[in-house]
Amino acid sequence: MCELLGMSANTPTDLCFSFTGLTRRGGGTGPHKDGWGVAFYEGKGVRLFHDPEPCATSPIAEFVGKLPIKSKTAICHIRQANVGNINLANTHPFIRELWGRNWVFAHNGQVPGFTRRVGMYEAIGDTDSEELFCDIMNQVRQNLPRDAMPEQLVKTLVGLAQEYAQQGVFNCLLSNGDWLFTFCSTKLASITRRAPFGPACLKDVEVEIDFAAETTPNDVVSVIATEPLTSDEQWDIYERGEWRLWQLGEVVASGKVDVPVHSTESAMTSPSAMPRDC
Amino acid sequence: MCELLGMSANTPTDLCFSFTGLTRRGGGTGPHKDGWGVAFYEGKGVRLFHDPEPCATSPIAEFVGKLPIKSKTAICHIRQANVGNINLANTHPFIRELWGRNWVFAHNGQVPGFTRRVGMYEAIGDTDSEELFCDIMNQVRQNLPRDAMPEQLVKTLVGLAQEYAQQGVFNCLLSNGDWLFTFCSTKLASITRRAPFGPACLKDVEVEIDFAAETTPNDVVSVIATEPLTSDEQWDIYERGEWRLWQLGEVVASGKVDVPVHSTESAMTSPSAMPRDC
Repeated sequence: MCELLGMSANTPTDLCFSFTGLTRRGGGTGPHKDGWGVAFYEGKGVRLFHDPEPCATSPIAEFVGKLPIKSKTAICHIRQANVGNINLANTHPFIRELWGRNWVFAHNGQVPGFTRRVGMYEAIGDTDSEELFCDIMNQVRQNLPRDAMPEQLVKTLVGLAQEYAQQGVFNCLLSNGDWLFTFCSTKLASITRRAPFGPACLKDVEVEIDFAAETTPNDVVSVIATEPLTSDEQWDIYERGEWRLWQLGEVVASGKVDVPVHSTESAMTSPSAMPRDC
Repeated sequence: MCELLGMSANTPTDLCFSFTGLTRRGGGTGPHKDGWGVAFYEGKGVRLFHDPEPCATSPIAEFVGKLPIKSKTAICHIRQANVGNINLANTHPFIRELWGRNWVFAHNGQVPGFTRRVGMYEAIGDTDSEELFCDIMNQVRQNLPRDAMPEQLVKTLVGLAQEYAQQGVFNCLLSNGDWLFTFCSTKLASITRRAPFGPACLKDVEVEIDFAAETTPNDVVSVIATEPLTSDEQWDIYERGEWRLWQLGEVVASGKVDVPVHSTESAMTSPSAMPRDC
C-alpha cells in the first residue's frame, strides 16, 4: 500500500520530523518506491514537491526534509504503483482550484476501474486515485454552494467516501487549506501533540526529537498517517469507516459509516502484499 | 518589471544555464526580489517550484539550478510586486487543469484593475496577472472545443492578448505542455540554438557554457526571455504586438497585432522604474 501523511496545526509547524520517518519507507524500510509528493499550505498558496523517484533516495526528498518550511496544513504521499504508470502526472498529492482555493488530495487504496462522473474536473494522469479526486471536486462543485460550511461540506464528503469505500479501498486526505478531511477505509492513525511536549523516536530511522524544544506551550500539532510513525507514543487508530475533520490541530467533527470488508483487501493494504496503486 | 523565461525544445533539455542567469536578476543584478517560480513539464506532469523569497538568495532556487531536470517545455518567472502582496499565492507561474492537461501561465506587465469575466476559474491570490490567466482559461473553455487545433486556439489567445494589451502591458508565456504561446506587448526576446552549437556567456554572472558538449546535432532548443540572457549571441527581439507559437523548439505560427503605447509604459517596463506587478 501507499503511505499517507497529513498534518493539522494551530501554528505554522515544521513537518521535517514526520517527513523524515515517512520518506524512509519510500524504498527504504518500506516497498513504496514509485514516487512521492508533498503539499505545504502557506496561507492560500501551496508549496508542491513531486518526484517519481523513490523518496528514500530522492535528492529532492532529502532537500525538502531539511527545508524550514512551516505550515498549518500539509499532505504527503508515498506511492506504490499498480494502476497507472510511474510518472510525474500520476504522483500524489493532486491539486485543483475550486472557489478560489487550492484543494489538495492524496489517496491510499484502490477502487478498481473507477470512472468519475461527468464534470469539469478531469484527470491528467491515469490513476483511479486522480479519477476519485476529480469526482469529489465535480460533486462538491455541482452540489454545494461556494459558501458551504464545513458541516455541510463534510456531509457530502463522507457520503462520497462511503460510496468509494464500498467499491474498493479508500483511505484519503483532502484539504482546502482551512480544514483537513480524513477518511479511513482500512488503515489510518493519528496523534495530537500538545503541552507538555516530550521526546519522540521515529520507528523507521534512528531519529529522536524533543518537541518541547521545538514548540511553545500553546501549540497543538496533529499528525495523521497510514501507520504510527513513532515507537514511543500512543497513536489513535481509526476504525473502519471512521472519518475526522481537522482544523488547527483539533478534530472539529468526526463520525463513522459502514464500510464493507473486501475479499482482496489484504492485498490492498498489506505492506508485504503485491503492489497496489494508491 | 518582472522577468520571464520560457523554453521550447525538441528533446528534454536542462534549463540550468538560462535559469542561473535569470535568477541572478532576482535581487542580484536586478531588482526583482519579490519571489520566483518555475514549471518544468515532464510528459503531462509538471514539476513546480515556487518561493516568495528573492531567488538570488533562495536556497530552493540554488537547489533547483543544480537539479538535472530535463524538459521540453518550461516556464519561469521572477516577480517584482506592486499589485498583490508578496506571498506564495501571488507567485507565478500559475497553473490550472483544462481538458485533462496542466496549463501554466506567467505574465510580465500590468493591466490595472483588470477583473476576469464570469467563469469557473477563479484567482486564488490577488494579482491582476492571475485574474488575466483565469480569464484566458474561462474564455478558452467557454469558446473552444476540447479538440481545438493550435491554429484555432492561437486565434483566441491572440485576440485576448491584444484585448489585455490595449488595457495595459501584457507580455506573457502560456503552455499546456504541447506548445508554448508567447505574446509581446512591450518586451520579449528569443534565441534558437541548433547545430553547430557553440559557447555562450551569461550577461548576469560569470558563467560560460559550451552547448556543443551538452547537446546532440539534432537538438533544437529555443529560449524566450524578457531580455537577452547572453552577451555573445544574437537574440531575436520581438516587436510590439508580436506573438509566436512554439513547438519542439521551432516557431510553428506567428504574427503581429496592433498594440497601443501607454503613457505609463516606461514605468511598467523599465527595470530602473518604480516596481510594477507582473
